Amino acid sequence: MRIVIIGGVAAGAKAAAKAKRVNPDLEIIVFQDEAEVAYSACGLPYVIGGTITDQNKLVIRTPEEFAKDGIRVETGRRVVALDAANRRMRVRNLQDQSEESIAYDRLIVATGALPIVPRVEGIDLDGVLTLRKIGDLARFKAIFDTLRPQKAVIVGAGYIGMELAEAFHELNIKTTLIEKFPRILPKFDPEMAQLVHDQLVEQDIELILGDGLSKLQGENGRVIAVVTESGKVIPADLVVIAIGVRPNTELAMAAGIALGKTGAIAVDSRMQTNIPGVFAAGDCAETIDRVSGQPTWVPLGDIANLQGRVAGENAAGGNAHFPGVFGTAIFKAFELNVAMTGLSEQAARAQGFEPVSVLLRRGDRARYYPGGREVTIKLIADRRDGRLLGAQVIGPGKADKMIDIAATALLGKLTCHDLENADLAYSPPFSPVLSPMIMAAGALSSRVSGVAD
Amino acid sequence: MRIVIIGGVAAGAKAAAKAKRVNPDLEIIVFQDEAEVAYSACGLPYVIGGTITDQNKLVIRTPEEFAKDGIRVETGRRVVALDAANRRMRVRNLQDQSEESIAYDRLIVATGALPIVPRVEGIDLDGVLTLRKIGDLARFKAIFDTLRPQKAVIVGAGYIGMELAEAFHELNIKTTLIEKFPRILPKFDPEMAQLVHDQLVEQDIELILGDGLSKLQGENGRVIAVVTESGKVIPADLVVIAIGVRPNTELAMAAGIALGKTGAIAVDSRMQTNIPGVFAAGDCAETIDRVSGQPTWVPLGDIANLQGRVAGENAAGGNAHFPGVFGTAIFKAFELNVAMTGLSEQAARAQGFEPVSVLLRRGDRARYYPGGREVTIKLIADRRDGRLLGAQVIGPGKADKMIDIAATALLGKLTCHDLENADLAYSPPFSPVLSPMIMAAGALSSRVSGVAD
Repeated sequence: MRIVIIGGVAAGAKAAAKAKRVNPDLEIIVFQDEAEVAYSACGLPYVIGGTITDQNKLVIRTPEEFAKDGIRVETGRRVVALDAANRRMRVRNLQDQSEESIAYDRLIVATGALPIVPRVEGIDLDGVLTLRKIGDLARFKAIFDTLRPQKAVIVGAGYIGMELAEAFHELNIKTTLIEKFPRILPKFDPEMAQLVHDQLVEQDIELILGDGLSKLQGENGRVIAVVTESGKVIPADLVVIAIGVRPNTELAMAAGIALGKTGAIAVDSRMQTNIPGVFAAGDCAETIDRVSGQPTWVPLGDIANLQGRVAGENAAGGNAHFPGVFGTAIFKAFELNVAMTGLSEQAARAQGFEPVSVLLRRGDRARYYPGGREVTIKLIADRRDGRLLGAQVIGPGKADKMIDIAATALLGKLTCHDLENADLAYSPPFSPVLSPMIMAAGALSSRVSGVAD
Repeated sequence: MRIVIIGGVAAGAKAAAKAKRVNPDLEIIVFQDEAEVAYSACGLPYVIGGTITDQNKLVIRTPEEFAKDGIRVETGRRVVALDAANRRMRVRNLQDQSEESIAYDRLIVATGALPIVPRVEGIDLDGVLTLRKIGDLARFKAIFDTLRPQKAVIVGAGYIGMELAEAFHELNIKTTLIEKFPRILPKFDPEMAQLVHDQLVEQDIELILGDGLSKLQGENGRVIAVVTESGKVIPADLVVIAIGVRPNTELAMAAGIALGKTGAIAVDSRMQTNIPGVFAAGDCAETIDRVSGQPTWVPLGDIANLQGRVAGENAAGGNAHFPGVFGTAIFKAFELNVAMTGLSEQAARAQGFEPVSVLLRRGDRARYYPGGREVTIKLIADRRDGRLLGAQVIGPGKADKMIDIAATALLGKLTCHDLENADLAYSPPFSPVLSPMIMAAGALSSRVSGVAD
């Protein structure tokens, strides 16, 4: 039996490895249109900023390593047509443009997401780029080495935009972030997003909010300025388009694979599409938000890995289920660690919950123990039953630890009453005597029950 | 209405503050036989080792600060007799030995725990001490400053013993740890405890296991050597007795307050004893192990705070419940962070579970991102249904984060299948793409279900 996997970055690579482990007798072929497979795109901003000095470190596994495990990885091959009825596909060799027809028994679509690039005037100028694939690093490096950019504009203040802002700051490139939405981090509640806003301003990142990209001005084929919708002209010799990504679904759609509400490929909990034997995983696939129960689309590397594991197991004959996501995310913005899980208060209200929240700032170690740093926590529960709905944690302190506690609490469908009596690990080098998350849950619990903490 | 609280270190101090917040009209008196209240005993080893330079920082709140909130704190006062039938007690002023009779409406017993000191020959020699109270620091400092000890023996390789070993190492005192049990860390499974054993040996701590304290040899009233039960003679000019603590229950017992199986004061989930209106909290009180459902006794500062909060609320007329503990604990042993929650594999088997476990070692960041450190995780579930039973995490990496994820998973009664699809926070500076805890859960899940991960 042959499993073909289209795409080999995160979900595809993971699915291949998992399928082979479940059934070593399977023939597994991965078609990948880039030169590399199994790499961490999340590491790109850190290569650009210089934290990671060798971009090859981002490659987790080479085609040769896959081959040792009996997995055939074909790079530089694009699947250009899919015939699901006859279980065949046409695969183009991107080097010589030759095509061949390949049959499969089971298929995993892991085509990922594509950067959204607005077709505005000047978008093809030199110095304008997206940074999503490992191959984009060479383009950036060429610009950086030859043009020595002094002034960058990043269009889009999402996670990637902010990580790039920090990377450019490391490279001493004066950076402006343009965001069409009136504030940064719309998934966070405004008072939390403001903490990051202030940090960016403090770090000398210029923020232009509520204003979109109108066009790009060039000279001799090179970008020299960004013009916003409101007419602002911002000089720039480097422009990164980071307004977001969309699921890469053209191939699937053409083959009759159904999309969901979000525009990503609809799958059941086994990651199977509407076509039996055809699975989808990673940034091209839809999933379920486990707090609201609604379809959602979360194009993140860890989710891709989790989904790839399930799709791989099932394609190989197993019966694994992917239960959905909580929208957990974290990123570093200069001195701040910025994390969230579940719903914001705004999103919870919009979805029909009756959210109540607390906001508190605490150290992440015993006060008397050196090296502690602060975290600001916003914890949200439903007023009616105390069920936790979401958390946001921002600060120089251990936001990752706090948000993982909250994410696990959501997974356990805990209430704030449950969490306020959590038995978390305490010792002065690691935590205050009661974890900031317990303190937040206690304060929230009082608001739900009406007793002051 | 008057609430009297006996003891004001952790549970007592927390209970006083909570009761006052619940009902500001209450009269609250705290009797404390030491000079300080509301201090962190957990910080003592770090004062000794010099990480914390000012011992006053351990004091979280002074009697004067309590007074501002309308709470009367009487230090240097020992409650020497309790008449529960008539709701009165006799309180001795430790300065002038005068006694007075005090009435109460509600009582919270927070008498803590006492170090176990074996009545062996030489136990009263100079240079032999326990380190449990903030007042013990002065005694240590006197010995350290005058005798300049070169060679210490710590009797007991529990958390405190090991923290002190590290502190003495910082002070360039050659240290030997004696433990009667054949290995250190009996609550951990042997292969995990061995990691800490190796670390201690590597740090030049001498370990004598399976051998107890027989007697102490002195010269001119000062200790010069420890003699073990097997007859070993270990030269020492500083000896710390750290073989454990016992609940301080004499006063309660004499008043007819019932003890539980563990020897600590029995309480219901409201922290109320067998006598209505009398509560107990902290190191003197028993609780429930939430994995096994059995009574347990966990004398740790965070648990004392959680219990104090509940006892204070209820004494003030509220109706809070303390649901029990998972035995979560963490400590630092030189370069290693050492943490556990729930049951060890050995304990699980002894309690009638059918444990199955995995052991894995992983980095706590993406491999390509600098600064990651390793953690070794042992994760344990019941073979029959995959329910998580416990976790142990040891390593230079983020053991605190990993164990808090596991402790929250236990709180949510999660299975390893649940945890392997947790939506934890990923970004290269914070985590590998799949958290080590997810990897462990995935591997464990395969063992429960029979499919290789």
